Amino acid sequence: MINKLIEKIRKTGAPIVVGLDPMMKFVPEHLQKAAFAECGETLEGAAEAIWQYNKGIVDAIYDLVPAVKPQVAMYEQFGIPGMIAFKKTVDYCKEKDLVVIGDIKRGDIGSTSEAYAVGHLGKVSVGSKSYYGFDEDFVTVNPYLGSDGVNPFMKICKEEKKGIFVLVKTSNPSSGEFQDQLIDEKHLYEMVGEKVYKWGLECMPEQGNYSYVGAVVGATYPEQGKILRKIMPKTFILVPGYGAQGGKGADLVHFFNEDGLGAIINSSRGIIAAYQQEKYAKYGAQGYADASRAAVLDMKEDIAQALAARG
Amino acid sequence: MINKLIEKIRKTGAPIVVGLDPMMKFVPEHLQKAAFAECGETLEGAAEAIWQYNKGIVDAIYDLVPAVKPQVAMYEQFGIPGMIAFKKTVDYCKEKDLVVIGDIKRGDIGSTSEAYAVGHLGKVSVGSKSYYGFDEDFVTVNPYLGSDGVNPFMKICKEEKKGIFVLVKTSNPSSGEFQDQLIDEKHLYEMVGEKVYKWGLECMPEQGNYSYVGAVVGATYPEQGKILRKIMPKTFILVPGYGAQGGKGADLVHFFNEDGLGAIINSSRGIIAAYQQEKYAKYGAQGYADASRAAVLDMKEDIAQALAARG
Repeated sequence: MINKLIEKIRKTGAPIVVGLDPMMKFVPEHLQKAAFAECGETLEGAAEAIWQYNKGIVDAIYDLVPAVKPQVAMYEQFGIPGMIAFKKTVDYCKEKDLVVIGDIKRGDIGSTSEAYAVGHLGKVSVGSKSYYGFDEDFVTVNPYLGSDGVNPFMKICKEEKKGIFVLVKTSNPSSGEFQDQLIDEKHLYEMVGEKVYKWGLECMPEQGNYSYVGAVVGATYPEQGKILRKIMPKTFILVPGYGAQGGKGADLVHFFNEDGLGAIINSSRGIIAAYQQEKYAKYGAQGYADASRAAVLDMKEDIAQALAARG
Repeated sequence: MINKLIEKIRKTGAPIVVGLDPMMKFVPEHLQKAAFAECGETLEGAAEAIWQYNKGIVDAIYDLVPAVKPQVAMYEQFGIPGMIAFKKTVDYCKEKDLVVIGDIKRGDIGSTSEAYAVGHLGKVSVGSKSYYGFDEDFVTVNPYLGSDGVNPFMKICKEEKKGIFVLVKTSNPSSGEFQDQLIDEKHLYEMVGEKVYKWGLECMPEQGNYSYVGAVVGATYPEQGKILRKIMPKTFILVPGYGAQGGKGADLVHFFNEDGLGAIINSSRGIIAAYQQEKYAKYGAQGYADASRAAVLDMKEDIAQALAARG
């Protein structure tokens, strides 16, 4: 799957992942009204609204980008109907041949991490049969519990030819509270990065230079990104925090290797709620999907320029 | 909710939480057969089997213990039908007046953590209405992203009078890889413990000595438990790792304060799969729920003796 991701990045020329994080305040009123008319102002209504919203965006951008990243929390908040909308979104994106990164940030002790890995990437046994639960292509994983929380994901990835991105340095303001602590003159995020690199070497595809164990490093921390790029040369970095969280194209160049690969930049509300920005206001709420398409094209250009400028 | 938990611990004399982590290999064959006969060997069939299994256990133990802790991963692995079984389990336990600790180990950046908090502890807005998603009483939270990943949970807990347990030192063998690293002669888990204590002081109920921001510290690390007990005097500690993971009653005494409170010990497979142990084999698979009841009573005795022995 890492090779599919790379191939699609090459084909689209866009190292971009669209974060499908549908907060209700992003969903245009006409979609909310239609969904509530059908299902009432219920959890089912909310789930229908975010599903229709997602579908419009995916239809408008699927040819431009290699991947999408649904943030499961935004679905989970609507309970069971929300999880059904999550699953529908995953399935629809896969139909459109997009690589689906489930942003689930799971992580637990061994047997429990295995259940998460099975549920989101693998197949679960039921009697003599087996089934995919949510069936994303990649998921994000929290490393706080150490190797035996991550190993079960690696095992399932090997079996299913899928992948993970492990949190190393997150994009949020307080990420430094623990991640930036110094251990023998090394920051915790560097120590986690070294571990992710080591895990990654055990998880190299038969062909290709990048492991299917990737890392998450926030766009909002370009200096740390530079350090981590060196520590983890064969690690693909998923970079959240572009746009709404403050990251800019010029901050991103250090996340890429010399081959122009090795990173994929996420933007969520910057793309899916583009129509709410002054810059794309002309599209209006009815044209929210076209606004998203325009925002993807602008983001692609911003990153391409920044990469070209580094020479 | 922390006060309800304490009141129920006092009433039952059992600082015990039963982990409802229904792996299929624990579910007695007669329940699997009945469920598969009804729904086929499908995800729905698996979900029905674990739900019936849970119901049997809850009916057998609800008067003995204050709380249960369903591990969401074990449900999530069965996709949507699994999540429906999770929700049914949460609701049923609440009907039985058990305190429900959702072992979800979520944690993300601010707005995303808020969605998790809303989905599992609070109410989500849909148009002019609002709804509970999964509606547990407590959830477990991963601290790797720092304060702004935890604050949204604290906010919802305040509004809803609920609580969280933050991972500090987990019970698994590799938990030391990051958690035991030394930062200025202090282990990372101590630093996280100090932070949890600080968060906790902002989250004290109107009456009572314990915060509704608790901590998770594994029974398998009694020495660390001793240190953390001192660092976090007003923090309730959820202690997993008793029984199957190797923790014993005598290892647990340091997790408790002098008032005999401050800790609640989780056992999962040691109770829910007791009938598979030699000790409880006489109950047979048909009597799995009675075996669970017997295992709770033995665990209660083991802890009471250990606490009495410390004088």
